[in-house]
Amino acid sequence: MAVATQSLEQLCINSIRFLAIDAVEKAKSGHPGLPMGAAPMAFVLWDRFMRYNPKNPKWFNRDRFVLSAGHGSMLQYALLYLAGFDSVSIEDIKQFRQWGSPTAGHPENFVTPGIEVTTGPLGQGIANGVGLAMAEAHLAAKFNKPDAKIVDHYTYVILGDGCNMEGVSGEACSFAGHQGLGKLIALYDDNHISIDGSTDLAFTEDVSKRFEAYGWHVLHVKDGNNDLEGIAKAIEEAKSVTDKPSMIKVTTTIGYGAPNKQNTSGIHGSALGTDEVKATRENLGWEYEPFDLPADALSHMRKAVDRGAGYEADWEKAYADYKAKYPQEAAEFERQINGQLPDGWDKVLPSYTPADKGLATRKHSETCLNALASVIPEFIGGSADLTGSNLTKIKDNGAFQKGQHQNRNVHFGVREHGMGAICNGIGLHGSGLIPYGATFLIFTDYMRAAIRLSALSQVGAIWVMTHDSIGQGEDGPTHQPIETLASLRAIPNLTVFRPADGNECSGAYKVAVENAKQNKPTLLAFTRQGVPNLAGSSAANAAKGAYTVVDCDGTPDIILIGTGSELQLCVGAAEKLTDKKVRVVSMPSWEMFEAQDAAYQESILPKAVTKRVAVEAGVSFGWERYIGAEGGSVTINRFGASAPGAVCMEKFGFSIDNVVAKAKEVLG
Amino acid sequence: MAVATQSLEQLCINSIRFLAIDAVEKAKSGHPGLPMGAAPMAFVLWDRFMRYNPKNPKWFNRDRFVLSAGHGSMLQYALLYLAGFDSVSIEDIKQFRQWGSPTAGHPENFVTPGIEVTTGPLGQGIANGVGLAMAEAHLAAKFNKPDAKIVDHYTYVILGDGCNMEGVSGEACSFAGHQGLGKLIALYDDNHISIDGSTDLAFTEDVSKRFEAYGWHVLHVKDGNNDLEGIAKAIEEAKSVTDKPSMIKVTTTIGYGAPNKQNTSGIHGSALGTDEVKATRENLGWEYEPFDLPADALSHMRKAVDRGAGYEADWEKAYADYKAKYPQEAAEFERQINGQLPDGWDKVLPSYTPADKGLATRKHSETCLNALASVIPEFIGGSADLTGSNLTKIKDNGAFQKGQHQNRNVHFGVREHGMGAICNGIGLHGSGLIPYGATFLIFTDYMRAAIRLSALSQVGAIWVMTHDSIGQGEDGPTHQPIETLASLRAIPNLTVFRPADGNECSGAYKVAVENAKQNKPTLLAFTRQGVPNLAGSSAANAAKGAYTVVDCDGTPDIILIGTGSELQLCVGAAEKLTDKKVRVVSMPSWEMFEAQDAAYQESILPKAVTKRVAVEAGVSFGWERYIGAEGGSVTINRFGASAPGAVCMEKFGFSIDNVVAKAKEVLG
Repeated sequence: MAVATQSLEQLCINSIRFLAIDAVEKAKSGHPGLPMGAAPMAFVLWDRFMRYNPKNPKWFNRDRFVLSAGHGSMLQYALLYLAGFDSVSIEDIKQFRQWGSPTAGHPENFVTPGIEVTTGPLGQGIANGVGLAMAEAHLAAKFNKPDAKIVDHYTYVILGDGCNMEGVSGEACSFAGHQGLGKLIALYDDNHISIDGSTDLAFTEDVSKRFEAYGWHVLHVKDGNNDLEGIAKAIEEAKSVTDKPSMIKVTTTIGYGAPNKQNTSGIHGSALGTDEVKATRENLGWEYEPFDLPADALSHMRKAVDRGAGYEADWEKAYADYKAKYPQEAAEFERQINGQLPDGWDKVLPSYTPADKGLATRKHSETCLNALASVIPEFIGGSADLTGSNLTKIKDNGAFQKGQHQNRNVHFGVREHGMGAICNGIGLHGSGLIPYGATFLIFTDYMRAAIRLSALSQVGAIWVMTHDSIGQGEDGPTHQPIETLASLRAIPNLTVFRPADGNECSGAYKVAVENAKQNKPTLLAFTRQGVPNLAGSSAANAAKGAYTVVDCDGTPDIILIGTGSELQLCVGAAEKLTDKKVRVVSMPSWEMFEAQDAAYQESILPKAVTKRVAVEAGVSFGWERYIGAEGGSVTINRFGASAPGAVCMEKFGFSIDNVVAKAKEVLG
Repeated sequence: MAVATQSLEQLCINSIRFLAIDAVEKAKSGHPGLPMGAAPMAFVLWDRFMRYNPKNPKWFNRDRFVLSAGHGSMLQYALLYLAGFDSVSIEDIKQFRQWGSPTAGHPENFVTPGIEVTTGPLGQGIANGVGLAMAEAHLAAKFNKPDAKIVDHYTYVILGDGCNMEGVSGEACSFAGHQGLGKLIALYDDNHISIDGSTDLAFTEDVSKRFEAYGWHVLHVKDGNNDLEGIAKAIEEAKSVTDKPSMIKVTTTIGYGAPNKQNTSGIHGSALGTDEVKATRENLGWEYEPFDLPADALSHMRKAVDRGAGYEADWEKAYADYKAKYPQEAAEFERQINGQLPDGWDKVLPSYTPADKGLATRKHSETCLNALASVIPEFIGGSADLTGSNLTKIKDNGAFQKGQHQNRNVHFGVREHGMGAICNGIGLHGSGLIPYGATFLIFTDYMRAAIRLSALSQVGAIWVMTHDSIGQGEDGPTHQPIETLASLRAIPNLTVFRPADGNECSGAYKVAVENAKQNKPTLLAFTRQGVPNLAGSSAANAAKGAYTVVDCDGTPDIILIGTGSELQLCVGAAEKLTDKKVRVVSMPSWEMFEAQDAAYQESILPKAVTKRVAVEAGVSFGWERYIGAEGGSVTINRFGASAPGAVCMEKFGFSIDNVVAKAKEVLG
């Protein structure tokens, strides 16, 4: 139909569609299908429901929006542009997917204000949405008063078939149902098409029934292409059910409007091509040139600017009332959402001497975590069903559960990947919360995509990983990390710590909290088994990543470098190597060491000392960086075995004698 | 009740329970709760239904059994011992979880004959079970005749709450429902307890309804502790439904029989302790000493030996008939299940010269895969919904679908982790099938746990990973591998290949197939973008992991080491460094290079040549092994960016000029 006969709403929806079509066409890259099909639901949501302020994308009480089907990024850029966000101009849309543009291939929160979380890897966004809704529920339970709801927003997610096939979304949505996160509303773009073709090829389950099984409130809009009132009614209904998350299945046609390519996988992830763009213009009666839009549509959508200013002003007024009535709570609220730590927070971290009883570093972690949680109420997290093994319980706090969302101990269930993505959502809520997630170190493999995204999308999460080597013992090779530390150290922007004793645990947690406040994740690896508190260890030095624990007079003949539970072996070996000048370096964090200046690095590992031995119960992979061509290592380059931890350590060569032997071999 | 009043079946069931109790007690380590609760269902299954031959655990047509809740390993060891497998003696059970014992902490197929797959990491076993059932369905469709079913067995899985919380199980079970794998029967030990406590803490979804949503046939045995006939009836019903997989929810009491600890998380993963063991003996009327069993129970269970010999003899007879009637099919069947490759299979792999058009290595992969699949019918696999991007379709074959299980192109859906675990199950079916699974290289993060298990549990899988660097371009940092190659190279027993051109792709596939036949997985990393066919490249040399592509006269001044799409930059740089003696080494596979003898390694990378530059569009992490202290690298140690691939390459320094500059810097 011609433009003249199109309603204002149709003009807006088609504006979204053609921004996507034309941007993808210009870039010759991108995914037009989803934006074209999901434009109606997105328009209704953004135009009639979502509360946000385009001129202040970080306004605290905004509704959060997540495009979990992140490949449809042009949908979100079109919305941001149309709604008047400064972050996306029409020029930016013309630069879709080009170097340095805020309109990156997939939505990136760290690039484009107005985007809440980074999506693209499927299933992550909906799981992040669960975390955003958790953060809201937690803060609301904590700060709201019967007469003053200062925390009160919805989290909306658009997800697709791909998201719904991924296990991580299942984990997170099962958890969300359990938790009764009523302000989480997911719109499922049910378009029957994925990259391989029809979902009939691989995905014929009853998604609605599955979500019902999870305890969600489930709705269906049968004609998501045209039934705007149906979409609106469903969202209204979803909002009205406050004790369950809602999933609205919105049946749509992928690439709606493209006469030859709609409803095919051909329009999922490729430009339409000149002919089909033309045909689509004709089919939808679109008389505008690329990137040119009807003024009415733009001005209608831009009303979001005034509307948003109003929302924020209303909230500011309500908040001023709250502050007047509850000054203490308001002060705490402001401290938290501004990301300020309480003064002296790090003073609670304990220190130890060798006289103190040796403990597993996971026990030290428990002490640190509890000490910090007592002074930093923004700590919230838990374990993927290993609370008693990971020792992550905040002892003076209850379980985060439906009706008890003020609590901070989260039982994630055996859902490592979901846990990771949920923690990312909590962190990206932007309200100062410090999420932590725990499991056995080996099971970082299950949640690696989420850990990577924490590093990429700048989440100040703390990953608490215990049972960090073959020292975990009897569970055997399926549970014993070998290559795990190396594989994590390889991730950019992730700080990995493997502390050796109590003092180093304090240092590791101090860095983790400081990192969190700089939106950087930290992964902490702790032992299952006990380790002694070592002379010369120190929290402050551990925070530098590497430091000298035992030194000799003058230039060392050899440097023994240890981490975690193997540092004690280096110390023991140094004592036995009486005829040599031996330095022992503890190296709990490669990343922190590499962040020090060259002079410091040289003072710890002088270039002139080429005889070096690294000792770590993990692969040698990567250690060549520090031991060089003349060095050696006591490491393990095969899978472990089931036996008591001490037996495994001995059998695989993690003994003082073997470190001495390796040192002698290196010394030649 | 006293032993005298216990039925023979109760004696058998209690024998399983006490073997578990006493073994865990002796080891002071392990998980008694599941074996105690699941003993009745396991007994009924093994005693009345399962067809296997204890004296030939590898009998081809055996029913497959998977204990997906692998922490309950003592259940399986008890069954193996009682049923008369030679792999587990009573002495072995006394050595539960000790060094060198076949009774490892979790079931390990590579240690203990009679165990099909390695479990413990939750959710993997049920997904492996889907793969086992797929293998059976495929071979049955391929080899069976209307008058001769030589492939005809069930796959039984016991899984727990933990397995059901994991996303990987959801992915695989959704897929199994779609495929209508009717001979897959899962018994869900519904005991309401996980490590943190009651499943009420985190897992309150309706699991049965979820499986119904997946298209499964769902049954419920309400009293799994006592209702043996109910269990048997359910299994009968499950067997009778042949067009859907069946899930039997069996409600049990964890740690059944322990009066003070049953139905608590305290019995999940800890020894009962002396007092509770005593109380349990009294409660269950068990008058036997530890590891002593009623003779009646043992002799009843040992009937499995004769029964099993009979099953196998019957099958051998049926197979002899088949062979007589269908000699050609039988010859092919035997070749396949004996793991013999057709003569000359590797001759189909193409070779190239620089005159041949440069293509993306994923295109070469497509050519190799199709060539191999045409001569090796045991190739079966596909992509996690990226078939057209990964280029993994076998062109002259159809889609593996319900009713068309003879086909080999599997549409796994957007389920990377499920795909990985399913492929592991296909490989571990032990029938010569070579499974392959494909996605973008970055999404190995989603399936890393399964890739690791392929390496640990000796699966001859081929992981086909495309879009292997920032060269993938516009999708941006969420889709661009940076640390991925390093993180995979760190995994023991996994061969990683990153070929540079057509010849190297042929070499990589040759190694992958040879590895598969030695039960070793191979991961292949291919480019999205085109690369030239290089002078000096060779399949045979690529198979050695590293070799000289361009050489100089005499000892080189510098060695440039490249992989994949960056090898061409090294060649180009060598051409520009006219005043230096430059060698260019292609290093597609670190693992294969390290498998060569020292003389070969020295011939390629002479120790005396310390000036070396590694060029790879990934992290430098690990490259220190080859470049040493005096070397340098052109690598990328940050996340990528969204822009056309060629722009990304240029911006991040992957250019001939920059390699030249780095070489000059290293030369000093």
